[in-house]
Amino acid sequence: MDLDRSPLARSFPNLPAITGATPRVARARYKTWDRCDLTLVEFAKGTAVAGLFTKSACASPEVEAGRVQIGGGSARALVVNAGNANAFTGAAGREAVEQIQAQVADELDCSPEQVFVSSTGVIGVPLPKDKARAGIAAALLAEPCDWLEVARAIGTTDTFEKGATTTATIGDTEVTLIGVIKGSGMIAPDMATMLGYIVTDAAIEPALLQTMLSQANGASFGAITVDSDTSTSDTVLAFATGAAGNVPLADDDSPEAEAFAAALEDLCGQLARLVVRDGEGASKFITVKVTGADSDDSAHRIGLSIANSPLVKTAIAGEDANWGRVVMAVGKAGEPADRDRLSIAFGGIEVAREGRAVETYDEAPVAAHLKGQEIDIDVDIDLGDGQATVYTCDLTHGYISINADYRS
Amino acid sequence: MDLDRSPLARSFPNLPAITGATPRVARARYKTWDRCDLTLVEFAKGTAVAGLFTKSACASPEVEAGRVQIGGGSARALVVNAGNANAFTGAAGREAVEQIQAQVADELDCSPEQVFVSSTGVIGVPLPKDKARAGIAAALLAEPCDWLEVARAIGTTDTFEKGATTTATIGDTEVTLIGVIKGSGMIAPDMATMLGYIVTDAAIEPALLQTMLSQANGASFGAITVDSDTSTSDTVLAFATGAAGNVPLADDDSPEAEAFAAALEDLCGQLARLVVRDGEGASKFITVKVTGADSDDSAHRIGLSIANSPLVKTAIAGEDANWGRVVMAVGKAGEPADRDRLSIAFGGIEVAREGRAVETYDEAPVAAHLKGQEIDIDVDIDLGDGQATVYTCDLTHGYISINADYRS
Repeated sequence: MDLDRSPLARSFPNLPAITGATPRVARARYKTWDRCDLTLVEFAKGTAVAGLFTKSACASPEVEAGRVQIGGGSARALVVNAGNANAFTGAAGREAVEQIQAQVADELDCSPEQVFVSSTGVIGVPLPKDKARAGIAAALLAEPCDWLEVARAIGTTDTFEKGATTTATIGDTEVTLIGVIKGSGMIAPDMATMLGYIVTDAAIEPALLQTMLSQANGASFGAITVDSDTSTSDTVLAFATGAAGNVPLADDDSPEAEAFAAALEDLCGQLARLVVRDGEGASKFITVKVTGADSDDSAHRIGLSIANSPLVKTAIAGEDANWGRVVMAVGKAGEPADRDRLSIAFGGIEVAREGRAVETYDEAPVAAHLKGQEIDIDVDIDLGDGQATVYTCDLTHGYISINADYRS
Repeated sequence: MDLDRSPLARSFPNLPAITGATPRVARARYKTWDRCDLTLVEFAKGTAVAGLFTKSACASPEVEAGRVQIGGGSARALVVNAGNANAFTGAAGREAVEQIQAQVADELDCSPEQVFVSSTGVIGVPLPKDKARAGIAAALLAEPCDWLEVARAIGTTDTFEKGATTTATIGDTEVTLIGVIKGSGMIAPDMATMLGYIVTDAAIEPALLQTMLSQANGASFGAITVDSDTSTSDTVLAFATGAAGNVPLADDDSPEAEAFAAALEDLCGQLARLVVRDGEGASKFITVKVTGADSDDSAHRIGLSIANSPLVKTAIAGEDANWGRVVMAVGKAGEPADRDRLSIAFGGIEVAREGRAVETYDEAPVAAHLKGQEIDIDVDIDLGDGQATVYTCDLTHGYISINADYRS
């Protein structure tokens, strides 16, 4: 199925090369398509790695391997296969991952544990080992490419390439961070992206990188949802080559570490929101901000209850300021809330206050706001100081078309 | 919006009159429609009542009142308003409920606590007290009607009238149970029906009736989901007039109580499944049976994770045996599961076993099964003895049309 480019798409930014990271792409032809679908990124010796993985109890063998590998903290290569998720494939799937690791480790003279593998696409078909072997051989011979080509090669049902970049100053050294990400369906808060990769030339201890990545998760990948469904393959990996030459970051209390952590959070947030912008069938980007909750966690859960509600999402698709459905979603969240203290605003205009409709609110600007592509829903619980922001998209006929027609 | 009758509709059964219960309907004109939208059922003195209510933290004043009233165990009247949910309406909403209770209590010479009120429809608009008063006055003057008229009068976006009946033998007395129910969207497992009413001529102590109704809930109203959304108004009430003249049931250990409990469970199950058959946009009725889970509760949660997954529901809409999405939904349930022990069948034919596809399965009968209206998904976790069955419908363009167009 050819999918139209999402109306919420953003153009791909200029992503700089990162010294110590060399991306290449190739055609493994996992599906009958004429595009690169295998990515191989080679990292310099000494590259630190950190990762986030799906919490699914039915994770792919790539994720199972990655959960173990990440403890080593060291990476020499990343391989991403697009078109076949290799999930739910039993022993054959595990063998395919091991073969890829062995082939790349042999070529780069490193340990198989330093070769990280991700696969995305159809579930239930073992990754064909012959195609993987030939694809990797082709990638090793290919010219290095830029990050746009990587973003394209890791995509499946994505309708646009997604990337972001930022910088941080560590001492007197400027370091650069880039990220690419793919994902458009089966996106839920338990580890929201399908596959995301962050590369920086900063020097940082792997344990600290892991701490920072985990901290950045909550307000970025953990704060987005397209359809409440959680992939068996979700993975975010961060690689730090150290080529920038800064004094290696090791202490999370230092101002240098704080500067880098802020840059990483910014980058993760950008990437996560791009995934929502490619949400299947999305026509509107929805920001749900919850304030006044019992705690930040409570605000987060209320936000996700709203963002995952099919009735809220269809109301927004219909450009209807149906705050009653927002009340419903607050009520079902299972979190402390008092109906008679609740306030709800669309586009900054309060439509309900203290448990009832604001009869005098000006409908024209609300209607105009809902006709736009960027929708803001603000909910004040008026019980405490907890707050959180989550991001989602509307639920449209496009989502049904994509998912009732996309063949397994 | 005129909605087509659900393709999964069932014809309304012949529901007998219940001695001690006198239903009447009237036109309160809560919306600009030409139909009865107010129901008043008068119960004989001594009628016992039990109830189940939404767990929503933002419940309607009707639900808030009902939660308190049910402790009294005694009912003389039920009033149901259709077209206005009276939810999220602050003090004005509470006053409307109190006025209805006072008016009916005055007329029937009973306590306001014996008058149960439900309202369903638009959220956020206080129930107009003048229309309610006139509607009740009209109902009091109306001829008694049959249960079909009640089923019609309590409906909103329902596309067919839903009712069920059964009998039980208590000693040498046959008692009759009837039920009517409405609901098609905002249906979720926390108390799944919008509004359901059960009436029996059995004599039974209210505390025992409550115990039996709560026990029947898990496998009936608690086992259905249309869209994972939970109404602010969900209510099920059971009324027992005692007119059958059986020795009143009081001991839940007796064979008589067991016979009645079995009949009540059967009735609740029938009513609950009818709600799924009127699920918004539904074209297929899906039965998800989970076996081999760690516990019955675990099986129930896994079943709901599958039944609530938009990706599973759209796959069924597309008549696609996409068991990979079922794996995904098992994985995200947060319950004990081992990918490599999982088996999945559609229409009784195993398509995945022990963590991988059954390559030799016969696709033709699976495809034929998926083209039908009654879809069976069986999942065996192979870890323990826990089992549960839940019911849902597919997710179609019809759901989007109904919910993106239905004006708040």
